[in-house]
Amino acid sequence: MPQPNPKTMPALRKLQDAPGLTWCSDVPVPKIGPRDVLIRVTHAGICGTDRHIYEWDAWSRSRVQVGITTGHEFVGRVAAIGNAWTRTEVGRRVSAEGHIGCDNCEPCRTGNGHICEKVDILGIDRDGCFANYVAVPEENIWPVHPDIPDRIAAVFDPLGNAVHTVMSAGVSGRSVLITGVGTIGLMAVTVARAAGASKILVTDVDQRRLNLARQLGADEVFPAGDESWVSQVRSATQNQGPHVLLEMSGHPSAIRNGFAALRNGGTAALLGLPARPIEIDLPNDIIFKGATVLGINGRRMFETWYQMENFLLAGRLNLDPIITHELDLADFEEGFRKMQSGEAIKVVLRTPTDEPPLCPSSTSTNVPTSYSHS
Amino acid sequence: MPQPNPKTMPALRKLQDAPGLTWCSDVPVPKIGPRDVLIRVTHAGICGTDRHIYEWDAWSRSRVQVGITTGHEFVGRVAAIGNAWTRTEVGRRVSAEGHIGCDNCEPCRTGNGHICEKVDILGIDRDGCFANYVAVPEENIWPVHPDIPDRIAAVFDPLGNAVHTVMSAGVSGRSVLITGVGTIGLMAVTVARAAGASKILVTDVDQRRLNLARQLGADEVFPAGDESWVSQVRSATQNQGPHVLLEMSGHPSAIRNGFAALRNGGTAALLGLPARPIEIDLPNDIIFKGATVLGINGRRMFETWYQMENFLLAGRLNLDPIITHELDLADFEEGFRKMQSGEAIKVVLRTPTDEPPLCPSSTSTNVPTSYSHS
Amino acid sequence: MPQPNPKTMPALRKLQDAPGLTWCSDVPVPKIGPRDVLIRVTHAGICGTDRHIYEWDAWSRSRVQVGITTGHEFVGRVAAIGNAWTRTEVGRRVSAEGHIGCDNCEPCRTGNGHICEKVDILGIDRDGCFANYVAVPEENIWPVHPDIPDRIAAVFDPLGNAVHTVMSAGVSGRSVLITGVGTIGLMAVTVARAAGASKILVTDVDQRRLNLARQLGADEVFPAGDESWVSQVRSATQNQGPHVLLEMSGHPSAIRNGFAALRNGGTAALLGLPARPIEIDLPNDIIFKGATVLGINGRRMFETWYQMENFLLAGRLNLDPIITHELDLADFEEGFRKMQSGEAIKVVLRTPTDEPPLCPSSTSTNVPTSYSHS
Amino acid sequence: MPQPNPKTMPALRKLQDAPGLTWCSDVPVPKIGPRDVLIRVTHAGICGTDRHIYEWDAWSRSRVQVGITTGHEFVGRVAAIGNAWTRTEVGRRVSAEGHIGCDNCEPCRTGNGHICEKVDILGIDRDGCFANYVAVPEENIWPVHPDIPDRIAAVFDPLGNAVHTVMSAGVSGRSVLITGVGTIGLMAVTVARAAGASKILVTDVDQRRLNLARQLGADEVFPAGDESWVSQVRSATQNQGPHVLLEMSGHPSAIRNGFAALRNGGTAALLGLPARPIEIDLPNDIIFKGATVLGINGRRMFETWYQMENFLLAGRLNLDPIITHELDLADFEEGFRKMQSGEAIKVVLRTPTDEPPLCPSSTSTNVPTSYSHS
Repeated sequence: MPQPNPKTMPALRKLQDAPGLTWCSDVPVPKIGPRDVLIRVTHAGICGTDRHIYEWDAWSRSRVQVGITTGHEFVGRVAAIGNAWTRTEVGRRVSAEGHIGCDNCEPCRTGNGHICEKVDILGIDRDGCFANYVAVPEENIWPVHPDIPDRIAAVFDPLGNAVHTVMSAGVSGRSVLITGVGTIGLMAVTVARAAGASKILVTDVDQRRLNLARQLGADEVFPAGDESWVSQVRSATQNQGPHVLLEMSGHPSAIRNGFAALRNGGTAALLGLPARPIEIDLPNDIIFKGATVLGINGRRMFETWYQMENFLLAGRLNLDPIITHELDLADFEEGFRKMQSGEAIKVVLRTPTDEPPLCPSSTSTNVPTSYSHS
Repeated sequence: MPQPNPKTMPALRKLQDAPGLTWCSDVPVPKIGPRDVLIRVTHAGICGTDRHIYEWDAWSRSRVQVGITTGHEFVGRVAAIGNAWTRTEVGRRVSAEGHIGCDNCEPCRTGNGHICEKVDILGIDRDGCFANYVAVPEENIWPVHPDIPDRIAAVFDPLGNAVHTVMSAGVSGRSVLITGVGTIGLMAVTVARAAGASKILVTDVDQRRLNLARQLGADEVFPAGDESWVSQVRSATQNQGPHVLLEMSGHPSAIRNGFAALRNGGTAALLGLPARPIEIDLPNDIIFKGATVLGINGRRMFETWYQMENFLLAGRLNLDPIITHELDLADFEEGFRKMQSGEAIKVVLRTPTDEPPLCPSSTSTNVPTSYSHS
Repeated sequence: MPQPNPKTMPALRKLQDAPGLTWCSDVPVPKIGPRDVLIRVTHAGICGTDRHIYEWDAWSRSRVQVGITTGHEFVGRVAAIGNAWTRTEVGRRVSAEGHIGCDNCEPCRTGNGHICEKVDILGIDRDGCFANYVAVPEENIWPVHPDIPDRIAAVFDPLGNAVHTVMSAGVSGRSVLITGVGTIGLMAVTVARAAGASKILVTDVDQRRLNLARQLGADEVFPAGDESWVSQVRSATQNQGPHVLLEMSGHPSAIRNGFAALRNGGTAALLGLPARPIEIDLPNDIIFKGATVLGINGRRMFETWYQMENFLLAGRLNLDPIITHELDLADFEEGFRKMQSGEAIKVVLRTPTDEPPLCPSSTSTNVPTSYSHS
Repeated sequence: MPQPNPKTMPALRKLQDAPGLTWCSDVPVPKIGPRDVLIRVTHAGICGTDRHIYEWDAWSRSRVQVGITTGHEFVGRVAAIGNAWTRTEVGRRVSAEGHIGCDNCEPCRTGNGHICEKVDILGIDRDGCFANYVAVPEENIWPVHPDIPDRIAAVFDPLGNAVHTVMSAGVSGRSVLITGVGTIGLMAVTVARAAGASKILVTDVDQRRLNLARQLGADEVFPAGDESWVSQVRSATQNQGPHVLLEMSGHPSAIRNGFAALRNGGTAALLGLPARPIEIDLPNDIIFKGATVLGINGRRMFETWYQMENFLLAGRLNLDPIITHELDLADFEEGFRKMQSGEAIKVVLRTPTDEPPLCPSSTSTNVPTSYSHS
């Protein structure tokens, strides 16, 4: 099986049971099995999850293995392919789904690998993409259309979260309330607009984020600090409440107020993760309302990815105000600092290369020639 | 507008701010407006809600108007009709939907009057059917097919709750867990069986109810007292958990265990009403699971009623073991006592009549002649 | 029951079994029953169906009663209300659903009155709105939001066809092919754009219409005369074909080519009416494709009307280039001529009035005060 | 890569451009690639398609390659596995999906490989299972639950057609008309019953088949020769028509009469393949009805397979009267004869073996140990 020439590479690792990440200049390049692909990462986004790991909060300490290479959203070029792989070729530009299912269970075999009970997540359960190379199974590769720039392909993962949430809820011709406009919440604003929402209402504690939400297509925005927003939202929706709630904050009062605002018969899609169990008034918030509540996790494989591509190729999404910074991987400390200060929204880390594709000789000859992405 | 001859009638009323109901022998027969129908009640079911009102618990005290005639599930004969009514005729056997919507809002105008924000409920917000006569709006009448006996037509309301829950969740070819087999839970067992559930699992604290659930079609039953039922339910579903949870207990631990058992990607339909807000672990119970949660309230008007009729006419439901007692209205105390002791499940109260239809002259001549129910 | 003062009115009637319509200056003002509403029409649209009746084609001769007042799309003011009516008040601005169901069958009782087997259509089966007054049942009234101008409220009927088609097919994030851009097809372009279609492709024989489709949001347009459009449509959709076909021509070759273009697993919504049975290659066009085909008729009552209002109030629709002419009712001949020549697309006929509301004394006192439209 | 010891095997091939099949006693055992599995076939069903190929009709001549090993429905044991395969182990009992997708297109990557535009079908486009061994890609394997007998596992393919049709249409609580009870139509009867159909009506030209349909759960059956069945079907469904049409004959008049019978708002699922384009009255059959028409092809991968397993493990299906004969592969001529005469419905051909698993040494050590089927 062909292997790339370099034996080691730089990588950003969680080496200590303490805040921070460590720049390691020569960790081994990952090995690949017959059904895997090795990718030369060129651009990787810093996710809120990466920040949790950097800050080493309670969740991270309970979930993440010390020693791991972090990062899970990226784009790069195929550097090597396992010998049982027929779907790509060396040199092709690809991103990848970071949820790696068991491939044997009912969710995995019905297009729902994102909710496989044994799912491994890149950069959390196995070595991730803050490095020059990352290895992923064949199944997880997504060939990137040439019309989509690297900085956007690098953030398919969170954009996919937003698309999965919006498309699961169904916003076409409906009024939408988004509670919480972190990165994914902001992406949800532009996605909901593209997907045909008739009215987009947004609440958040951060006025700068609210302003940005407006710029991305929100019709009305409400500071979360003033709880009269619930009645304002109802006024803005003919006193019925919004058809759809996209909960993206994980904050208990946003969740409760969101349910209070929701229209009878409405749909609530929950993506934000509260840190602990919270009290819900099931009769008034869900049962008497006849509400539908959707738990949203990851992205559908690969339905969400096709939807995302459709929106992007149609030019319907405005992501430039969200991807605020591009830095070299080595400057990761600056990236995390800017996210913590609120100066940055999405930071993309680059590991540029002028190297030729590593193993031209490994190019499979049975790659489908009519493959639509090149 | 024709009115029935009698001016007064017996009725069962909530007359005091204390437990109990009062037998009133001569309350006025209700008046009807141009769009209303007066019905000579012949059979009325005692609902768990009626028992709450009888026992005058916290919910009843906060919700029910003292002075009201109770009861909301019934069958009878049309005794008089308003002059703007074209849908029925005097003497026709009818039941009625007890949720009376405003008829003007979006839910009411789109077949979702059960979640109208201004809905009035028979026997709670306006005079009900534990009486010789009850008045309801034209919209709410359901003509009863001649092949359906009175004792079953008298309980369309709770049966409709069960059908609405089962059909909203979608059980065809799927495994179903029912938590709580009160009357509606038991009905849900026979409905789920008829609707094509591949496996029905039931948990409850009452062993007699569990035995009855088995008789009605449950494949396996689990005493709720032993919390190992969660893992047994998973074993019984190839270690995936059931596709569908029908929550019919309102009990916090049943709700939490039900979510814990539910399969990733599964559907939970919530009908049971917890007495107060309860803690939910949103990430593990709903979000990571990619679950769909449905709030269930009332019955769809009139989609649920047609589904119910389809099942009944097809002979697919077994309700006889659930409707355990028929008593005269005057013996209502015995009925409540038997429900409290657990001896009875569903009690139907009779107010039989040999009276001729009251106002033959009022028979409308513009009743559709091809009307399918007679 | 209050009646308007005038006894007669002008109306446009089909009086002869021959092409043309007749201006009648003093036909009786319609009478209303207790559940009806009399409306002083102020604006009425000329539909393609009206043109068929005007031209007296085979379909019209077989379907339309000679003697009838024509017209079915309109807006006006309530002039009088039946005494059993509680939903509106004299003077209120309203439009109405022109499909009048039997109110007793399963479709009528489940929000699907548009497919009632006994449906009567305004201006076809009963007197229509090309007149100063029209009578419709209470159920059919739609109160018009004050932010929506008369010229648009006058064409809710065809706009509702477009909305029903687009929303039934589901276009959010999907590519859409529209075959045929008559008035409803053009409306479908702006609706599909608002509803979140990722790409809109249009074909028609008329280049002016294609240009207009572009202006309304079509991404690419194809003259139908050159049948290579099928392969061009596939090229424009990554060689998969569009996700959705909206068939609005009724033309056999458009239907067949539309199916040929459709993606495997795609959805075809059929609104256009072929004049006679046509040959369909079921295996290749539908079965092997795993296609979903939807028959589209009228508008859902009243789900479609709420969707339409949502889009309009959100300012997402561009109808001005479609409603090309406003004329006085008396100038109807000019309107039909302009439609026949292709100069006009949608013509709205006005019957303006400075009269005060006719029967202020009839204003019901039980009109809901919180009613959201005034 | 391990290979089974035998180099040759018996196989049933289409060797001549003429009716019949040829018994070949020593064709080479298929070779497998790194992602393939070699299966020792033990039981294989004769499909209607195989009979077309045997009889060499117009369709077969235009579609099937002379020289190919026929057959596509089977069960067997894994004999050898490619070196990149981790999902099974030698000796495991498996069936397989016979539609082999390209694995790269949108349908293939979203659980819809059955409608891949480049799909290859076993026994039609590549060597099939009427042989001692057959090779299929890893993706296509279905491990058979130990509680399911071989004779049933051998016919998963047509049973899956029936399940896919029934579950796509949605029959729970609805009345169903099945036009045509060939093997798949008969299977659809028992599946529809298990899936919760409230009433099952069947029409066919063959009275024996109609009798069998009754035995399998049909409520009423109608000889197709007497076209009054359409009105009888409407009488049996409260004069509305059935909610669902499952078209399984491919016969033009059954299709047209089936549409005529269908209820307004109903769903028609088309599986039967007419031999040529047929005339459809789109306005009356589909558009005015507001009907939904579904093209049905193959089985969903692998949603349908899980549904099928659920029904089978729940003991809800009655297949014994359908699988009428089991014969040795060598007696295939008798099998085809019995099918042609109508004596047999489904014939299963056996190629029993006492051989030990061929390559125990090849057992992969990385087979998931918790795999639910063993």
